[in-house]
Amino acid sequence: MAEEVVLLDLWPSAFGMRVRIALALKGVKYEFKEEDLWDKSPLLLKMNPVHKMIPVLIHNGNPISESLIIVQYIDEVWKDESPLLPSDPYQRAQAMFWADFIDKKASFSFLSSFMHHWAKKVCMAKGEEQETAKKELIECLKLLEGELGDKPYFGGENLGFVDVALVPFYCWFYAYETCGNFSIEAECPTVVAWGKRCMEKESVFNSLPDQHKVYDYLLQVKKRVEIE
Amino acid sequence: MAEEVVLLDLWPSAFGMRVRIALALKGVKYEFKEEDLWDKSPLLLKMNPVHKMIPVLIHNGNPISESLIIVQYIDEVWKDESPLLPSDPYQRAQAMFWADFIDKKASFSFLSSFMHHWAKKVCMAKGEEQETAKKELIECLKLLEGELGDKPYFGGENLGFVDVALVPFYCWFYAYETCGNFSIEAECPTVVAWGKRCMEKESVFNSLPDQHKVYDYLLQVKKRVEIE
Repeated sequence: MAEEVVLLDLWPSAFGMRVRIALALKGVKYEFKEEDLWDKSPLLLKMNPVHKMIPVLIHNGNPISESLIIVQYIDEVWKDESPLLPSDPYQRAQAMFWADFIDKKASFSFLSSFMHHWAKKVCMAKGEEQETAKKELIECLKLLEGELGDKPYFGGENLGFVDVALVPFYCWFYAYETCGNFSIEAECPTVVAWGKRCMEKESVFNSLPDQHKVYDYLLQVKKRVEIE
Repeated sequence: MAEEVVLLDLWPSAFGMRVRIALALKGVKYEFKEEDLWDKSPLLLKMNPVHKMIPVLIHNGNPISESLIIVQYIDEVWKDESPLLPSDPYQRAQAMFWADFIDKKASFSFLSSFMHHWAKKVCMAKGEEQETAKKELIECLKLLEGELGDKPYFGGENLGFVDVALVPFYCWFYAYETCGNFSIEAECPTVVAWGKRCMEKESVFNSLPDQHKVYDYLLQVKKRVEIE
């Protein structure tokens, strides 16, 4: 059967990037449909009536929502190429735990918002709220550095589920740092080295936008929110 | 190999109940260790150093955290008895979507708290905040009724992943209704009928506390929080 794969997405979305990376790693061709979060398409509302959020993967007409669930689905359907989740149940549970940890930290309060938690709090808050957010981001990255240890990737010798879950936020680091006036590399050199390593992979590099473009997007959103 | 299965839990925890039901369905014997959330055990802090929360399943010395991840782990390790997740990737993704939906609605803001979102907002808030929470709970249950449709269980003819994710909250309904002074059955008769059907299963009935005991627990917590 000819595969029909459509992705409803928004280019600066870290959650959408996860799906793009997974599809690239598996070598799956797909149609990218850019959404406007201020004017959602009838297709998005139909395909994700519960959350009305991107990303949504539509595979042969069947919609799948929630980025980590989509990545897991992709891993199961196209299982021979670049497996992302380990086959051992305990290793799988560990990978899922860390991916879920990233989600809890990054997307907390996201449901009612248009931007992920870190971008909102580190880039758009001020004063004490911003300082707390910076501290929490660094704490979270340090915990992840502990999990990474000496491995080149969270998945071991190759990119795995946790790498795919986290690396999209790496292209937001420049925006966090510029808005928050701090250096993530100074605090978390291991995670930054890991991010650079991931970016050497074609599937990652080609799926992520340039960090300056992400920062410009953030400035535009900030302006728009201030006006509204 | 002799299986050593230990569950760190708190009896009124809906998240812990999920794990208890899954273990009961699979016929797995385990040691139940009751935790005190106001005085967490060194074992809990060691086994779940990131979130420091129950439930934690310790299987042959390996700790697994986060209730849905634990249920999925149990389903994979003891796969022959009462399969919970469908083997078809799309069906699996759908089951995961709804379980995740329940988590997002029920445990939102839970991380920094001692009680799940619904219990906190429907039972412990007052005035407009409580009315909003009641409305949101009913909306959420109606969406789930739509997903259930005419099936006896979310899993189809048998209990599945979504049933295990949701049914623990059923034994909290009496507490919600009594504190919120409303009838869930009047608004969502289908989900209440489903709850009753689940309670006829020995694995569910034996894993859930009596609804009046849950309500008494809630009253105690309310008192304690008011004093502190």
